[in-house]
Amino acid sequence: MQTPWEYRYAHRIQKMGSSVIRELLKLTEQPDIISFAGGLPAPEVFPVKEFQDACNQVLSDHGAQALQYSTTEGYLPLREMITRHSERFGVKVSAENILITSGSQQALDFIGRLFINRGDYIVVESPTYLGALQAWNAYGAQYISIPSDEDGMIMDHLEEALRIGPKFIYILPNFQNPSGSTLSLERRKRLVILADQYGVPIVEDDPYGQLRYDGEHIPSVATLDSRYRYDNNDGGEYTGNVIYLSTFSKLLAPGLRLAWVIAPPQVIRKLVMTKQAADLHTSSFNQHVAYQVGKGGFLDEHVKVIRATYKERRDVMLELMDELFPREVQWTKPQGGMFLWGILPEHVDAAEVLKVAVQRKVAFVPGAAFHPNGGGANTMRINFSFSNPENIREGISRLALTLKEALKNGKGG
Amino acid sequence: MQTPWEYRYAHRIQKMGSSVIRELLKLTEQPDIISFAGGLPAPEVFPVKEFQDACNQVLSDHGAQALQYSTTEGYLPLREMITRHSERFGVKVSAENILITSGSQQALDFIGRLFINRGDYIVVESPTYLGALQAWNAYGAQYISIPSDEDGMIMDHLEEALRIGPKFIYILPNFQNPSGSTLSLERRKRLVILADQYGVPIVEDDPYGQLRYDGEHIPSVATLDSRYRYDNNDGGEYTGNVIYLSTFSKLLAPGLRLAWVIAPPQVIRKLVMTKQAADLHTSSFNQHVAYQVGKGGFLDEHVKVIRATYKERRDVMLELMDELFPREVQWTKPQGGMFLWGILPEHVDAAEVLKVAVQRKVAFVPGAAFHPNGGGANTMRINFSFSNPENIREGISRLALTLKEALKNGKGG
Repeated sequence: MQTPWEYRYAHRIQKMGSSVIRELLKLTEQPDIISFAGGLPAPEVFPVKEFQDACNQVLSDHGAQALQYSTTEGYLPLREMITRHSERFGVKVSAENILITSGSQQALDFIGRLFINRGDYIVVESPTYLGALQAWNAYGAQYISIPSDEDGMIMDHLEEALRIGPKFIYILPNFQNPSGSTLSLERRKRLVILADQYGVPIVEDDPYGQLRYDGEHIPSVATLDSRYRYDNNDGGEYTGNVIYLSTFSKLLAPGLRLAWVIAPPQVIRKLVMTKQAADLHTSSFNQHVAYQVGKGGFLDEHVKVIRATYKERRDVMLELMDELFPREVQWTKPQGGMFLWGILPEHVDAAEVLKVAVQRKVAFVPGAAFHPNGGGANTMRINFSFSNPENIREGISRLALTLKEALKNGKGG
Repeated sequence: MQTPWEYRYAHRIQKMGSSVIRELLKLTEQPDIISFAGGLPAPEVFPVKEFQDACNQVLSDHGAQALQYSTTEGYLPLREMITRHSERFGVKVSAENILITSGSQQALDFIGRLFINRGDYIVVESPTYLGALQAWNAYGAQYISIPSDEDGMIMDHLEEALRIGPKFIYILPNFQNPSGSTLSLERRKRLVILADQYGVPIVEDDPYGQLRYDGEHIPSVATLDSRYRYDNNDGGEYTGNVIYLSTFSKLLAPGLRLAWVIAPPQVIRKLVMTKQAADLHTSSFNQHVAYQVGKGGFLDEHVKVIRATYKERRDVMLELMDELFPREVQWTKPQGGMFLWGILPEHVDAAEVLKVAVQRKVAFVPGAAFHPNGGGANTMRINFSFSNPENIREGISRLALTLKEALKNGKGG
C-alpha cells in the first residue's frame, strides 16, 4: 500500500540507491561466515573493564551533567585532551579548533553540507573511502579520481586536477581504507604546497594514524601544512588549509560514536551551527566516559595492545596468502591500519567471486564501489583486524580455494 | 586571517545565522542565573543508580556487542520494546516501523532531508518548535503558520492552508513546545480527516506525551489515523499518513541522545539510508543501556516520579505568577509538559524585557523566534521543569519585578 509520503520525497532522495556498506554489514551478521568484509575492530581489544570503571565513576561524580543536554561543540575537557594529543603529533591547536562529532561519518556529512553545491568537483584517491562518497553523493558531488599506488595519491596527476577547480581534496594518508596504502612524506609535502598554490583546501581523514605496525610515523598533512605556514610552529590557533578528522572508534570503541574535527575556528563555528540543527550535540554521557577512560594516559598503553593484536593478524594473513593464493593475484602489504587490497587479473570480476565465496562462508568487499568513476571490478578489500588468527587461517584457505576456481573458470563465477 | 575554506561555503550555508537555541543554552550556563530559558529536564529525576547498574550489566553481558558498530535501524530489542510501548497507546506497529535516532532533532533533520525541496511549504502551528524550524531552514523550507489557542491548532484555518499544497503538516499535539497547549480530541479527529482528504501527510512530534499532570490522556494523531484507516485496528504494520516522533530525552535522560521515529516501513527504509550516510548508527552502547534500564518496566514507575516532580513545579510557578505578575500579563496553564507561555501587552517587546531580566539573574525565551512568519514579539516561553521550587519562587519574583518595571516604562526596557 502506498502512503502519501511516497509521492513527496525531495529530488535529492528520489534516486537514492540501496547502501552497499549496509548490505555488507548484514553479511557479517551471519553467524557462520568468516567475514573480511566489515571494517570492524577486534572486540577482544575493547577495554570493557575500563569502561565499567569509567561509567561508574562518571555517574557517581558527574551523573547530572553527563545525563543532561550539553553544548554542541562538545565536552570541554575532552576537547582539551584532544588538543594535547594533537600537539604531541605536531599540530598546535586550541579547543576552538575542535568539534566533537557522532563518528567521523557525521563529520563527512557536515563537510558535504557546508561546502558542496550540486555539481561541485571533489578530488579523491582512486580507490577511496566509500562512506565519504555516500555522504557527499547526497549533496550532488562529482569526483575527480586521482590514481594511486602503494605510496598513495600520485601527485603528478593532482596538479592537472586542481586546474579543474575542485571544491576540496579528500585524502586518507595513513593505511588507507580501502587500499592500505600510505602517502609518502615527499608526496605529503608536495600535496601541501600544490594545495596552497591553487588555493584548494584539503580534508585529511585519519582514523588509523596510530595503528602503525612497521616503519616510522609520518607527520600528518595538517602538521606539514601548519609548519609550512608558521616556520617556527608558534602560530597559535590553527588557521590553515586542512580540515583534519580522527576518531575514538579505532582506539577505544566504535559503539560510542565519538570522533573529532580539527579545523580553523571560523570553520568550526559553521560546523557547530550545522550540528546544532542536525542533532544538537553528541551524547554527553559518552563524551564523559571517553574522557574518564582516556584522561590518565590509558590510550597510549591501550594502543600498544591494539597494534600487537592487529600486527599479528596482518602477518598471519599475509603469510598464508603468500602460501595459498594463486600467483596471478596481487595484494598490498600495508604498514598499519585494518585493510589490505587484492588485485585480480583484469578479466576477473570480484563481485562474482564474492558470490561463490559467500557459499564457502567467507566474505570480502568487491572493490568497484570504492571507485566513484568506474573501474576496479577486479579489486577486493580484505579486513584483517576483526577475525582472530584461527579464523583468518580458515578464511584465507577458503578464499584461496574460491580464487583458484575463479581463475580456472575465467570470469570469476 | 581568512582560509580558503571561507570562500567555499555551499549556497545553503552562506546565509546561516547564529543559532538562537545555542545562545540560550549558553545563558543557562552562567552559574548564578535562575534560568526558565532552557528546555532541560530536572537533573534530580535522572535515574543515576539504575544507569550505573545497567552500564555494569550491559558491559558484563554484552560488552563486545555494545561497544561495536551496529545496524543503522537500531538495536532490535530496543525497537521491540518501543513497539510494545506504542501498542499500549493504541498504535499497532512492528520493528519495521521504527528507526532509532540520535535525539528527535536528528529525526527532524532527516525528515527535512527526505522531503523538503527548496521553497516547499510546511504547515506549522504558530508558535511552533524552534528546533524544527532550524532543521528545515537548512533545506529551504517556507512555512504556513496556523494560529492556535489553548486547544492547539485552529482547524478552520488548516483547510485553507492545505489548498496551498504544503509538503506536510507539523504538529506537537501534547503540551506543545513552546506554548504548552494541547490539541483537543475533536481537533485531532478533524486533523486526521482533513489531512487524508487533501492527501497531505502529518509529522507528529510527541516528546512530552507521557508527562501529563491533569486531565485524561488523548489518543495520539497516529493512533486516530490508524483507527480511521483500519476500522477494527487489526491492520498489522502501520502504513498511514503520520510520521510519529518521540524520545527518551524526557523519560530517561537527554544526554544519551536517544529517540525514535515511527513511520510506514517504506519511509523507514529511506530514513535508514539517510542515517547510514549521516552517522552510520546511533551509539550501540547507549541503546543497550536504555534497553537494560527500561526492559523490566522501570519506565512506568519512573515516569510517575517525573510527573510528580514537574506537577509540583508547575503548580508553584502558576500560583506565584497569579500572586505576583502584573494584571496585564496573561499566561497558559498547561496540563503537562515543561513549558508555559506568557503573553505581554502588544506594545511590550519580550526581548527587551529579557535584557533587564538577565541583569536581575533570571532568564526566559522571547517568543518571536517561535514564529517563522513574524509576530509574537510580546510573547515568552517559560520552563518550569528544570528549576527546583525554591528557585522557581525566587526566579518568578525577580521576573515579576522586571515585568512591572517594563510595563511602567512602556517599551519593555
